[in-house]
Order: sequence, then structure tokens, then C-alpha cells
Amino acid sequence: MGEFHTGNPVFVTYVVAAALTVLKVMGQGWMTVYRMMRAGGGYAAPEDLRPGLINRAPDPSQLAVNDYVERSRRMHRNDLENIPAFWAAGLLFVAVSPPLWLAQGLMYGFVAARAAHAVAYATAQSHEVRATFYTIGSLIVVAMAVYALVAVF
Amino acid sequence: MGEFHTGNPVFVTYVVAAALTVLKVMGQGWMTVYRMMRAGGGYAAPEDLRPGLINRAPDPSQLAVNDYVERSRRMHRNDLENIPAFWAAGLLFVAVSPPLWLAQGLMYGFVAARAAHAVAYATAQSHEVRATFYTIGSLIVVAMAVYALVAVF
Amino acid sequence: MGEFHTGNPVFVTYVVAAALTVLKVMGQGWMTVYRMMRAGGGYAAPEDLRPGLINRAPDPSQLAVNDYVERSRRMHRNDLENIPAFWAAGLLFVAVSPPLWLAQGLMYGFVAARAAHAVAYATAQSHEVRATFYTIGSLIVVAMAVYALVAVF
Repeated sequence: MGEFHTGNPVFVTYVVAAALTVLKVMGQGWMTVYRMMRAGGGYAAPEDLRPGLINRAPDPSQLAVNDYVERSRRMHRNDLENIPAFWAAGLLFVAVSPPLWLAQGLMYGFVAARAAHAVAYATAQSHEVRATFYTIGSLIVVAMAVYALVAVF
Repeated sequence: MGEFHTGNPVFVTYVVAAALTVLKVMGQGWMTVYRMMRAGGGYAAPEDLRPGLINRAPDPSQLAVNDYVERSRRMHRNDLENIPAFWAAGLLFVAVSPPLWLAQGLMYGFVAARAAHAVAYATAQSHEVRATFYTIGSLIVVAMAVYALVAVF
Repeated sequence: MGEFHTGNPVFVTYVVAAALTVLKVMGQGWMTVYRMMRAGGGYAAPEDLRPGLINRAPDPSQLAVNDYVERSRRMHRNDLENIPAFWAAGLLFVAVSPPLWLAQGLMYGFVAARAAHAVAYATAQSHEVRATFYTIGSLIVVAMAVYALVAVF
């Protein structure tokens, strides 16, 4: 019998952690939208200079890189480099029936590390702070993938 | 018993929607390849200037940003910011046994919204048009993640 | 009954291939970190110019694009355009019970193609070499998605 059902507390842990990180990734897109609207710039495509509801006073400088907007895009990129791998590794990890305490420690630890990384990045903390939370999240994903690999051999 | 089997119509809905969006993402890579070949430029790496089957008449300008090619890369990036989260959220959503009509509405709605977004982006429609389809797709992913979270609490 | 359990050799094939590619994606992040440290440049954010353990002698040129570092970021981006789609398509493929030999051929073929792509990219082989391995990986993902679609219709 499989492990992927809501009667399995390890799977429920995965559902919670994966859903929270889905919301984080989608929210990052909205942070970029919010910052583009507020800055009135940092737009991505030439056609965004057409006048309309989003852009009432177009100006070519709106296509220039805007660091306020670009920071959100960098955060998004960092998410995409880590969070989908968490979704995959977490599912593999659940499949090999780890102990609940380990699943909760790793999965909620990942959620906390990525939340802390986002705060550190958004508030422009020193590289060391951001790197620390990145490292914790990354090592958790690696640990889950290795655990699954070892378990099936 | 789990929900992830082809005897469950909600899971079959997920298989169809996820497979179509996998094809969308992979196809976007091929659109970039096609545009690079047709434009003879917009290449990504310095070594792409070596003469060969792909590039018979190399020229340093081929490494410059080419908007025809770059548009496909921006579409790809937008896909990567939305579609993997759909794969994850959709799976969590299936796990908590939603009604079939809701699963079909949200999942096929997501496929339609992303297809419309791609057409709007490829044909350089106004920002408002692209933003509308982006918003629909994004809210569907958020809704599935929130539904799964609420269901396990 | 579902197919997603470790008693199913096709699912075990997926666990192995998905775990290896998770490690590839996470490892690519560490290759970027290693190259940033070794080059002392190619940093992503303005705050990375603050003096600290990572950066003992800050200089504005450290924010310029550094091809040694950027190559690793391009490899990472190429991974993100292919590997998460593999995780999704592979899961759909397992769900429709393909023969074991086909699952092993496609999934281990994908892992081998992406490993070869990474070596070709890291060592700056000609575009044709990189494109060949990209194509193999991409067609495998497409094949798995189409197989799953056809199977549920």
C-alpha cells in the first residue's frame, strides 16, 4: 500500500509544507506585481509601454532595470532554484516511510529556512545571513533525496 | 487508501491537466530553439559562436539580446514561475478528495488561462490582457493550495 | 490501487531518477556558490558588497556579470526548464503503469542525457553537442507526458 494518503501523518506533514511553499512562490509573483505598480517601472516587455489601466503615463525608462522590482525577481528565481526540488524530494521522502519526527523536522525546517531567507533577502541583510538560510534549506532537500535513494537500495 | 490512481476521476483530471502543461513548458523550450535558429542570434553561450551545423556564419552580434528570442525566454520564465507550482498544488488538491466538478473547473481553467496567457504574450497584447490571464492562473494555484491546507486541519 | 509505492519497481525507478536529478539541481546551486567564492565576483545583490566573511575586500566590479559564474547560472536555468517537468511527467507516467523496461529506459536515459548535458555545458563544448543532449532529455519528458495522456483517454 502506498504512503500518499491523508491518513498518513507524514504525508499530511508534506501537504502542509508543500502548500505553504506553493503559497510562498505564488506570493513572490504578486510581490513583483506590487513593486512594478508602485515603482511604475521595472516592466518586462516592450508592449508594457502602451498606455492602459496598468500604465497611464508610459515612458521608455519604465523598461530599465529597477532594483526595487528586480530584488523581488531575484527572490523568485532563488525560490525556483530550491522549492520545486523540495516538492519532488519531499514526495520521494514520504514514499520511503521516514519517521514522523524526522519528516516534521526536515519539512517544517525547510519552510522556516525559506521564510527566513525571504525576510533576509527582502530587507537586504548581509550575504552571510541570506547564505545561512539558503544553506539550511538546500541541505534539507539534499538530505531528503539521499534518504530516499538509500532507502530503495 | 490513497487518491492517486487512474480509477479516481479527480486524479485523471490532474493527469490530463498536468500532462498538457508539461507539454506547454517543453514546447516553450522548442519555441526558443526555433526562434534562435530563425533569427540566427540570441544565443546564450560564448561557445555558440563556433562554426558548426547550427551556426554556419558566426558573428559576435549573435550573442546580443534579440527580442524575438528573448520574448520566448520571458514566456518560459513566466511558465516556470507558475506551472511547477500548479503540478505541486494540484497533487495536494487531489489528495484531499475535492468534488470532481471543482477539480475539473480549476484544473482545466488553469490550462485554459495559461494557453491564453501564452497567446497574449507571443502576440504582444497589452499588459492588461496578459495580466488578466496570469491572475486567473495564479489564483487557481493559490485556491488549490489553500483548499488542501484547510482540508488537513 | 495506486502505483506509487516502493513495492512497484516502476515507482522505484522513478524514485531513483527523481532523487538523482534533485541532487543535480541542488548541486548546481552549490557550483554557483563555489564559482562566486573562487572568482570573488559575479554576486547577485547590491548588499553583497558589504564586507564580511564571504567578501573580505568588496569592490563594485564584483556585481558585474562574470562568465565563470554566469555559466553555472545558465546551467541552472537550463535545469529548471527541464528537470521539474521531468518530475511531474515521470509521476504521471508511473501512474499509468508503463512496462518496467520502458520506464527504466526513459528515466535512466533522462538522467544520463542531463548528466551529459551538464558536462558539455560546463566544459563549453560546441552548441551541437549541448543541443543533442538537451534534445534527448526534452523528447523523453515529452514522450512520458504523451504516453500518460494517451493512456487515460
